Amino acid sequence: MRRLFIFIFFVLSIRLIAQTTTSNLIQYVNPLVGTKNMGHTYPGATVPFGMVQLSPETDTVQYELNGKYNGDVYKYCSGYQYDDNTIVGFSHTHFSGTGHSDLGDFLIMPTVGNLKLNPGTANNPESGYRSRFNHNNETVQPAYYKVLLDDYAIQTELTATNRVGFHQYTFPESENAHIILDLISGIYNYNEKNVWTFVRVENDTLITGYRQTNGWARTRTVYFAMVFSKPIKEYGHKKYDQNIYKGFWRKFDESKNFPEMAGKQIRAYFNFKTTEGEKIKIKFALSSVSAQGAIKNLQTEIPHWDFELVKNQSQDLWNKELSKIEVETLTDKDKETFYTALYHIFLGPITYMDVDSAYRGLDQNIHYAKDFTNYTIFSLWDTYRALHPLFNLIQPKRNADMIKSMLEHYNQSVHKMLPVWSHYANENWCMIGYHSVPVIADALIKGILTDDFNYNDLLNASVNTAENQYYDGINYYMQLGFVPEDKNSSSVSKTLEYAYDDWCIAQIAEKTGNKLVYDKFILRSQFFTNVYDSTIGFMRPKLSDGTWKNDFNTLSTHGQGFIEGNAWNYSLYVPHQPVQMIEMMGGKKRFVQQLDSLFTMQFDDKYFAETEDITRDGIIGNYVHGNEPGHHIPYLYNWTDQPWKTQERVRMIMESMYSNTPDGLCGNDDAGQMSAWYVFSALGFYPVCPGSDQYAIGSPLVKSAKINFENGKVMVIDVKNQSSKNIYVQKIMLNNKEITRNYLLHSEITEGGFLTYIMGLKPKK
Amino acid sequence: MRRLFIFIFFVLSIRLIAQTTTSNLIQYVNPLVGTKNMGHTYPGATVPFGMVQLSPETDTVQYELNGKYNGDVYKYCSGYQYDDNTIVGFSHTHFSGTGHSDLGDFLIMPTVGNLKLNPGTANNPESGYRSRFNHNNETVQPAYYKVLLDDYAIQTELTATNRVGFHQYTFPESENAHIILDLISGIYNYNEKNVWTFVRVENDTLITGYRQTNGWARTRTVYFAMVFSKPIKEYGHKKYDQNIYKGFWRKFDESKNFPEMAGKQIRAYFNFKTTEGEKIKIKFALSSVSAQGAIKNLQTEIPHWDFELVKNQSQDLWNKELSKIEVETLTDKDKETFYTALYHIFLGPITYMDVDSAYRGLDQNIHYAKDFTNYTIFSLWDTYRALHPLFNLIQPKRNADMIKSMLEHYNQSVHKMLPVWSHYANENWCMIGYHSVPVIADALIKGILTDDFNYNDLLNASVNTAENQYYDGINYYMQLGFVPEDKNSSSVSKTLEYAYDDWCIAQIAEKTGNKLVYDKFILRSQFFTNVYDSTIGFMRPKLSDGTWKNDFNTLSTHGQGFIEGNAWNYSLYVPHQPVQMIEMMGGKKRFVQQLDSLFTMQFDDKYFAETEDITRDGIIGNYVHGNEPGHHIPYLYNWTDQPWKTQERVRMIMESMYSNTPDGLCGNDDAGQMSAWYVFSALGFYPVCPGSDQYAIGSPLVKSAKINFENGKVMVIDVKNQSSKNIYVQKIMLNNKEITRNYLLHSEITEGGFLTYIMGLKPKK
Repeated sequence: MRRLFIFIFFVLSIRLIAQTTTSNLIQYVNPLVGTKNMGHTYPGATVPFGMVQLSPETDTVQYELNGKYNGDVYKYCSGYQYDDNTIVGFSHTHFSGTGHSDLGDFLIMPTVGNLKLNPGTANNPESGYRSRFNHNNETVQPAYYKVLLDDYAIQTELTATNRVGFHQYTFPESENAHIILDLISGIYNYNEKNVWTFVRVENDTLITGYRQTNGWARTRTVYFAMVFSKPIKEYGHKKYDQNIYKGFWRKFDESKNFPEMAGKQIRAYFNFKTTEGEKIKIKFALSSVSAQGAIKNLQTEIPHWDFELVKNQSQDLWNKELSKIEVETLTDKDKETFYTALYHIFLGPITYMDVDSAYRGLDQNIHYAKDFTNYTIFSLWDTYRALHPLFNLIQPKRNADMIKSMLEHYNQSVHKMLPVWSHYANENWCMIGYHSVPVIADALIKGILTDDFNYNDLLNASVNTAENQYYDGINYYMQLGFVPEDKNSSSVSKTLEYAYDDWCIAQIAEKTGNKLVYDKFILRSQFFTNVYDSTIGFMRPKLSDGTWKNDFNTLSTHGQGFIEGNAWNYSLYVPHQPVQMIEMMGGKKRFVQQLDSLFTMQFDDKYFAETEDITRDGIIGNYVHGNEPGHHIPYLYNWTDQPWKTQERVRMIMESMYSNTPDGLCGNDDAGQMSAWYVFSALGFYPVCPGSDQYAIGSPLVKSAKINFENGKVMVIDVKNQSSKNIYVQKIMLNNKEITRNYLLHSEITEGGFLTYIMGLKPKK
Repeated sequence: MRRLFIFIFFVLSIRLIAQTTTSNLIQYVNPLVGTKNMGHTYPGATVPFGMVQLSPETDTVQYELNGKYNGDVYKYCSGYQYDDNTIVGFSHTHFSGTGHSDLGDFLIMPTVGNLKLNPGTANNPESGYRSRFNHNNETVQPAYYKVLLDDYAIQTELTATNRVGFHQYTFPESENAHIILDLISGIYNYNEKNVWTFVRVENDTLITGYRQTNGWARTRTVYFAMVFSKPIKEYGHKKYDQNIYKGFWRKFDESKNFPEMAGKQIRAYFNFKTTEGEKIKIKFALSSVSAQGAIKNLQTEIPHWDFELVKNQSQDLWNKELSKIEVETLTDKDKETFYTALYHIFLGPITYMDVDSAYRGLDQNIHYAKDFTNYTIFSLWDTYRALHPLFNLIQPKRNADMIKSMLEHYNQSVHKMLPVWSHYANENWCMIGYHSVPVIADALIKGILTDDFNYNDLLNASVNTAENQYYDGINYYMQLGFVPEDKNSSSVSKTLEYAYDDWCIAQIAEKTGNKLVYDKFILRSQFFTNVYDSTIGFMRPKLSDGTWKNDFNTLSTHGQGFIEGNAWNYSLYVPHQPVQMIEMMGGKKRFVQQLDSLFTMQFDDKYFAETEDITRDGIIGNYVHGNEPGHHIPYLYNWTDQPWKTQERVRMIMESMYSNTPDGLCGNDDAGQMSAWYVFSALGFYPVCPGSDQYAIGSPLVKSAKINFENGKVMVIDVKNQSSKNIYVQKIMLNNKEITRNYLLHSEITEGGFLTYIMGLKPKK
């Protein structure tokens, strides 16, 4: 009887909760978070997983085409740095949080007065078209960015739909109002990024064309269609090509009012006469297929000129997505940090197809995404850890489509490999491993991949990827059981990550009932043991003759067999076999000591200098949170007798390394991975080993959370006795039953119900 | 009764004739004609109007990428010069007879021995991969080219279908046999023609990719699919880019056996082991759309490896097309000259769409040719004169499709202009006028354009083209009635040609019943009178203030208001109003004197030096046959009292300026115009004014001819008393009725029947 009562109460509660309308959650998002220092986020306008990221650029590279390498390119991976006080313009494509640069296509800048086609320098803004601005005149919201351009008294507003950027510029009175379309401007550390640009002035309001670049993506073409709300008075362009095409010399001055422009380095301008307060609006659509495709995207997504309507609809999209997790927190700061993290998480991978499902594939042919949304920008070395696992909870439909996109990549790949680091129909091979595999395994194990997937295809793609003999030391790995450092650098990191990825393949093989493959890859998953030097208690690079590398420094990251992590951090990377790892490393007691040392040791500045992508705050002792290889480490205490130290560490990291301010990220957001770590941790659990169905328990930061699953079910997380001091979990109840283990199962969470953490001031030992 | 008998005989004859089977006419074609000196024809393998022109190159430009301009580029417009004795390789696209260079895509070269990736120089062939060859080992036929590469003892055979080149290389025994795919090699005088190249080794026999160039066509992309008959042993490439993409540095040596190549300057190689006499075959398909499109073209057109079969089928296509005119001549030389001319005429415009009708349009979007064949390479300033009129006789279906292609160009043009000089989805604006218009008018007047044409569309396209204010002095022409030389050079040529083109628009307007447009353009067609200086009896450049240009030299071509012709030649350019022109110039008597002077005067070498594109033989007196503006001039005697002088001159030109040898063309063949002049003249008539239905009568060279029309009708031309001395027409009978005028009507010819010339030794005065 009592049981029945509880059940009814339970069902009613969920119903009530599920009926809650979408609330205004964008108020808690601050897109400026991460724009200061190393976060590499952008503040501009975009919709969840949107193809257009319309965002201001405060500086880019190579304005003068002078061949000089600008050392600051890394700083401008996303185009915007909070400390700058000039804006160069607003371009339509941006990475979020990456540690490498590209994109920045189609920079638009409105000006008045004398036409300047050079962007000028930050020190001397008058030398070019850029303008000063002040953060006091800046409004930054999801899908809305507003700023006053001081030098021109032009009020700038930006919003966007999936494939269309919408600009609204409020001009002063001027006989000389200009819209500059800078086709040279871009983000990348390479003087000749532009391969070709092509522009047509189709009529007095419509411009089309494309830009082809050789940036981080080696072969990339983006088409556009741009429409003005007001007819152009006159227009023209300047070409900075070294070799000027001479075909026109007899007939035209193509620099003015000539409707076809083409070349490598072009800046175009469009002139208008404006009255005081007159708005000139621009809709700017992208396509990977053709200008025709861009026009179709434009007409379909914004068939009107109502800026406010688009802004409101796009912000509604954000509220809808953000409401997948509703939290209450101890402080506003925490709530803003949480929702900003969730916002960053939903910035990518981005949609990569036209409204008619066409997209340019890896083979440069046009493909059609059949019954799914095709995505691009896969920063998998980062995102397989927590981002895709988080999607399995709150974006399973999209994550399944992302896996379809990966399979399309595989089918189009001449290497027959799943993506490594892929964007815009290109494989840029960044970082190591083949971490599409854990994304697939995790989704498969967690039941995200429904009947429209052929599991054997998933397995074949994974196996072929893992057996590509010319990929990054795989041949040696397969022969020797490890990657030898004398043949291939970062050999230990590669060996460890391959071993984990291979364990994931075994999980897929098990799911498909393929024992042969399972056996093969479960064997390979043990190869981590081959690089453990028990005499020093660390993973260590081995040479092809089987001997250990001499002159080994466990603190240094450079040339020691690792990448973005030293031996202290990377030696703990066996996510699939933590028990075996701890045993191998001398048992639980010794392992706790090693973890404690990691978090508390003095870390010399000279070693910090070697640590890429992060700020000094991004390190606790020698633990590097600003890079990914250690993200699971704070949770490893769960496999020892002192799990409360996990709770201590994760609360410490959440408090010290995340905030709601522009400098609120301690390193690159890495396409959402840093933020995904935060969201999981704030909810009180973390996927230490994607590809398994377990979440290690941490210490929730929220007071309460409601996870609204796509299937309509709801999980309510209630944290009792929550405070900044009560960081230790005393007890966990799942639907009124106590959980006595250190982990939760995925199915337990997605089934919905109530998860209650009871917190306390002291560790529960 | 007698009439009925004649009628029956007549019908029977035609029937008998029409049933004649296709004969072996390719035996009379020598594709080497025009390959010596200035003809700019190519000797390689192609089908009629075929997209692939697979032809040897004996030299190209910029081997060393050293930035030096090679002054000989003009000589190598089609890649091959007969006097050379080395072959660099075999590429897949070539202009025929043009005076400007481009194309030369995808050069293939088979070699054995040490791999050389540099083509080397003609003086020192060993310095590169090129080979010596000897014309004794060369077989040159329509759709078949064979040559022995002396340095490698490789027997080379080439044939082609519409979109696929078929190579057959017979190797000696070698451990080191190579097929080089040189993606740098191309035809153009520009050091950075390559914009981008992209290659995928899809498997051990299939290669795909594309090449994007900035040549004469400013923005051009050609895709390919290449398949070997034998698996590749190993492969690689060398990249000559100044800036090497660094994305791969951590993982790959992409130069060897790495299946994706991309960059600006790439030479790839594919290695094989061969036995003595082993054949390696290559099928190489093109597409303007995608690699996918190229693969489809390849699979559709040659789904097997039977080289002989393709050769035979393609030669059958040639026999079929050549048999549209069956001639008997006085000499073998004449027959070979005639059929070679017909062969050259059928080389272009070329097919420009995939087997599924898709093609890349002028707007760079993909379009589909709906129920027609889309063509490209429109050298209209040349070809409107005789080539397209000839097509109206013997290729009306193709000519109608060419006009559809021009209309598609117009629809895709951001300038809303019909083609001027267009190739591969580009307008290169070469030469002057808007001579799509006479092509349209001629086809319309001659009844070629059936119901699937909207005549108003034709008129609108023509009018918009002729009223484009920014095109080449049109604004002045419309304001002042002439193009002023101080504002726009070659002003007289432009004024004269615009006036003629405008007359053609009036004809189109008349056909559509649009009186307003007719009146407007018939007025403009009189503008030729505005540049006639009666005080000197020549057309003369006028300045914008209405005064004549001083320092005027009627013999010089440079800076005198003309292009490719001096005042002596160009002053006679009023094809639509010869009667009025002769009147204006002082009447028939004075006009005959002027013509006589033109053909007989001493022409100073210093003026010859100014005359582009032709050999010294291409001039008779001061009459320049090697360039086009005078092509109608020999026929102008027909409008005087001495028409027999036309007969004299055309026989003289046919005898002295055309032959069956490599130096058999006196100037550029100009996409078939030179050859079309010959074919018309050899048949005894010529279209002095395309857009009218009249052909001026000349003096036939043939003994007899049978024109087999597409509608099944046949015109038999019989030349009685024909000899090299009996060059004067005494009498012309059309179906037994004497023709007493100096012209024939188009309808009279296409109705079929018998046209009899009776020739004599003396002029019929």
